Amino acid sequence: MDNEHFFDLFTHTHVYDLEQPRSSEAPLLPLLVPKFSYTLHRRHEEGAEDPCTTASGFIATTDHAGTHIDALSHVAEDLSLYGGEKVTSHVQTPIGFTRMGAETIAPILCRGVLLDIAGYRGVDWINGNQPVTRQEVEAVCLHQQVTLHEGDVALIRTGNGARWHDPSGYLNGGGMQADASQWLADQQIRAVGADHLTWDTNVRMDPVYGMSMPGHIILLVRHGIYIMENLFLEDLARDQVYEFLFVCLPLKIQGATGSPIRPVAIVPRA
Amino acid sequence: MDNEHFFDLFTHTHVYDLEQPRSSEAPLLPLLVPKFSYTLHRRHEEGAEDPCTTASGFIATTDHAGTHIDALSHVAEDLSLYGGEKVTSHVQTPIGFTRMGAETIAPILCRGVLLDIAGYRGVDWINGNQPVTRQEVEAVCLHQQVTLHEGDVALIRTGNGARWHDPSGYLNGGGMQADASQWLADQQIRAVGADHLTWDTNVRMDPVYGMSMPGHIILLVRHGIYIMENLFLEDLARDQVYEFLFVCLPLKIQGATGSPIRPVAIVPRA
Amino acid sequence: MDNEHFFDLFTHTHVYDLEQPRSSEAPLLPLLVPKFSYTLHRRHEEGAEDPCTTASGFIATTDHAGTHIDALSHVAEDLSLYGGEKVTSHVQTPIGFTRMGAETIAPILCRGVLLDIAGYRGVDWINGNQPVTRQEVEAVCLHQQVTLHEGDVALIRTGNGARWHDPSGYLNGGGMQADASQWLADQQIRAVGADHLTWDTNVRMDPVYGMSMPGHIILLVRHGIYIMENLFLEDLARDQVYEFLFVCLPLKIQGATGSPIRPVAIVPRA
Amino acid sequence: MDNEHFFDLFTHTHVYDLEQPRSSEAPLLPLLVPKFSYTLHRRHEEGAEDPCTTASGFIATTDHAGTHIDALSHVAEDLSLYGGEKVTSHVQTPIGFTRMGAETIAPILCRGVLLDIAGYRGVDWINGNQPVTRQEVEAVCLHQQVTLHEGDVALIRTGNGARWHDPSGYLNGGGMQADASQWLADQQIRAVGADHLTWDTNVRMDPVYGMSMPGHIILLVRHGIYIMENLFLEDLARDQVYEFLFVCLPLKIQGATGSPIRPVAIVPRA
Repeated sequence: MDNEHFFDLFTHTHVYDLEQPRSSEAPLLPLLVPKFSYTLHRRHEEGAEDPCTTASGFIATTDHAGTHIDALSHVAEDLSLYGGEKVTSHVQTPIGFTRMGAETIAPILCRGVLLDIAGYRGVDWINGNQPVTRQEVEAVCLHQQVTLHEGDVALIRTGNGARWHDPSGYLNGGGMQADASQWLADQQIRAVGADHLTWDTNVRMDPVYGMSMPGHIILLVRHGIYIMENLFLEDLARDQVYEFLFVCLPLKIQGATGSPIRPVAIVPRA
Repeated sequence: MDNEHFFDLFTHTHVYDLEQPRSSEAPLLPLLVPKFSYTLHRRHEEGAEDPCTTASGFIATTDHAGTHIDALSHVAEDLSLYGGEKVTSHVQTPIGFTRMGAETIAPILCRGVLLDIAGYRGVDWINGNQPVTRQEVEAVCLHQQVTLHEGDVALIRTGNGARWHDPSGYLNGGGMQADASQWLADQQIRAVGADHLTWDTNVRMDPVYGMSMPGHIILLVRHGIYIMENLFLEDLARDQVYEFLFVCLPLKIQGATGSPIRPVAIVPRA
Repeated sequence: MDNEHFFDLFTHTHVYDLEQPRSSEAPLLPLLVPKFSYTLHRRHEEGAEDPCTTASGFIATTDHAGTHIDALSHVAEDLSLYGGEKVTSHVQTPIGFTRMGAETIAPILCRGVLLDIAGYRGVDWINGNQPVTRQEVEAVCLHQQVTLHEGDVALIRTGNGARWHDPSGYLNGGGMQADASQWLADQQIRAVGADHLTWDTNVRMDPVYGMSMPGHIILLVRHGIYIMENLFLEDLARDQVYEFLFVCLPLKIQGATGSPIRPVAIVPRA
Repeated sequence: MDNEHFFDLFTHTHVYDLEQPRSSEAPLLPLLVPKFSYTLHRRHEEGAEDPCTTASGFIATTDHAGTHIDALSHVAEDLSLYGGEKVTSHVQTPIGFTRMGAETIAPILCRGVLLDIAGYRGVDWINGNQPVTRQEVEAVCLHQQVTLHEGDVALIRTGNGARWHDPSGYLNGGGMQADASQWLADQQIRAVGADHLTWDTNVRMDPVYGMSMPGHIILLVRHGIYIMENLFLEDLARDQVYEFLFVCLPLKIQGATGSPIRPVAIVPRA
């Protein structure tokens, strides 16, 4: 492809928006204070001599509100981060991490794959007591005739993104069982994501791993694979788009344990 | 190009990161309280039974801190937004705009063009008393042998991005004269950006337009063209990359007057 | 009384604490974003060479959370504040009011009177459909044998303070009818307060006054009488303490529309 | 004194306001992010049907901004708080302390004493290299002919409160040497305060105590004596008021390491 065509590439594509709307009414784990708020204090007002007025506001948010990506500093196993980096007071500070903060996440531009578990099950959404298993993930790959390659991003659809506007329902949605996370890690992918609040199916102790959130440990700490949460995957599923160019551009918030994101999936226009 | 090659497209590209690092030390207009802060209150700690610990923090920021895009609600001319939408109390509310908030900005994926004004002048950076003129923008297009097309994004390099770590110097950087903004608007482009705090060269009254920030009025209000500020354009300039695929994915912060962004420029790998 | 006795005065007194505990779980009008949160990011940590460690945190709160006092800038009638001060963009700014902000409230130290309406009615608390009337306020003064003097503070007990820990119940509590506010204003007192979220019985339109929150207009705008909300009056009522020294020391938050407070009532020890 | 006179007590007094104005321009240690900001997002606006409009705003502040009191949880010595309470993850949590938070500070109403060190020295203010010593504190007590009693509050005037509006000067002000703190602690007083940012003269290592901020350790950790900082003591000194009734009513912010305060000093009117 010559340069001219390359630069016009997106003219001939369809872009799927994978971010949920960001507002104070969105589902959020109650412990994630200060939650999310947006307040507008600089306003357009009459009475100025200057015809040009500007407005601006205040975003107050936990770094894990809404559609976001976890930085590698977000989770530790026995007080070690990815690569065995020990959590010391030099690494973990009052204003964030000096290692593996959100600013260290490179832009993610790669092949993406959707695994539509809810579609495969024939349900609207997966509930908390019906987590996604490894067996099922493999079955869906076969059924959809897609293969995960090294460096890909894998997005798991639980269908819960359809009830973003119903926080109590959304919080009750089911996520990944540990064996599914382990299998995804084995594929040497770059990042995973789901239309779910916490990726892992729940935060109680996993009987096999002896810990809460084993998927977070397996992916972030043991393999350095990023996790994206609260994705919107309904349009991709409706159009049966299982492969795409995936783009996610996390903000370089120095020291943060995650970043709000607006990922997109891009396909050639039919 | 068949699908398989399409999905692997980015494997053969180089990605330029156009976001400045996001921290409380970055340059910012003093009036933009609450400025930016990140504080980490959920920490990894010893003594838990659970080997898995999670950390998370609090982002408190004006919606115009760091590298960001202005939503169309950011600026009004005689109390009208783009398209003649009058600023009423139904449009402008305590928790943001019900029209033209950041959530209405579609993902931006298109051809991008860099106009390296500082390079053309042969200076490190452009100071406040030497704004970029229309004549100069046109001369640079000729000199770089690039043409702006409808729907493109035009990035103007003033060179000030190189002194992001010197806030007082950065605040003294020069921006666009009104005629440059008008000429860019005439090209029917989709968005503009610069390595500058306010795009417009200063916020005092423009003698011709009888207002402050005429570029904001021309671009946002009169033409619906987005403005990106505080971009990092040094690497593009160093490599003389004047055309590229441009991607910017603003967060859908409901009602906000802008969004933090991490734009990228993509070129085929040599 | 000689000086020495004066300075030891409080040794022989009992102090009633009239502030409700301040936490993110407290009742609050939903529209008062960002609500209240406290997060602790500077922590005591092992591993420092210095045996002395310090901890500190982040308070993010609306200026009307919890026990608070309304500044005169809080309410306007037809866009005028107390004393006919017109609300212009010079008075009302993005960072607060230049007139009648919280910093203009002098320390309040004066005689205080409790009117125990719930006790008089013989109910635990007053619900939303049973507002406090002027007739009732006068009857309680007689029944308690107390008289309001010019410059006093009058505290009205609805009993709802007892259900602070039940936010939905608390939000359903009853407040003042407009005629009660008018009668209190006529007594030329300095401030009023109640164990209620909004003083006025509800925020719908008052049929007589043709406005919401007529008590706020009568007291703050027309008479310059401060209003304190979300007081804790249970202990005073239990001990039938109807007269006391009252002290309230609002923070001088420049431009704010109110301040969090911890008022106290002081009586000689029996 | 009979009750009637008691309740009218303050009619015949003069009240000194000891709080500095609270704004984003006030002096603050740079590490105390998020500093202080007040933004006004709910505004009085034209066009409403309801003649009654309300305004309210957002306070974002460190719990150690401006005039404030340190809670006992603020400082630890070898990871122990006052009374030997060990700092564990049950005591120190992401949303504050479960022991010795600001909500545990009782209202402070007692005899207060001003020790005017700057006046005694005959200087406008005490600079950083001239800390207040024990010897000097004792000499000032003699010179002023005042004695500290058990349960009193002792306020030390360094004179720096006069340059609150000059943050860089203020930050350079001198505080207490460790032996002065120890002597004050020996008097078994209830709280101390100063017109100084950090009480202790600086935050470097004390050669005798082998720690930074020995005064904080001596007072808060070893004796449970509260520290108030950034007081305004100029008017008291001008009027040579060395004894007074002191009132300070810290907010019951659950788990906080301190609270903003507006202390007052009260004397009989001449």
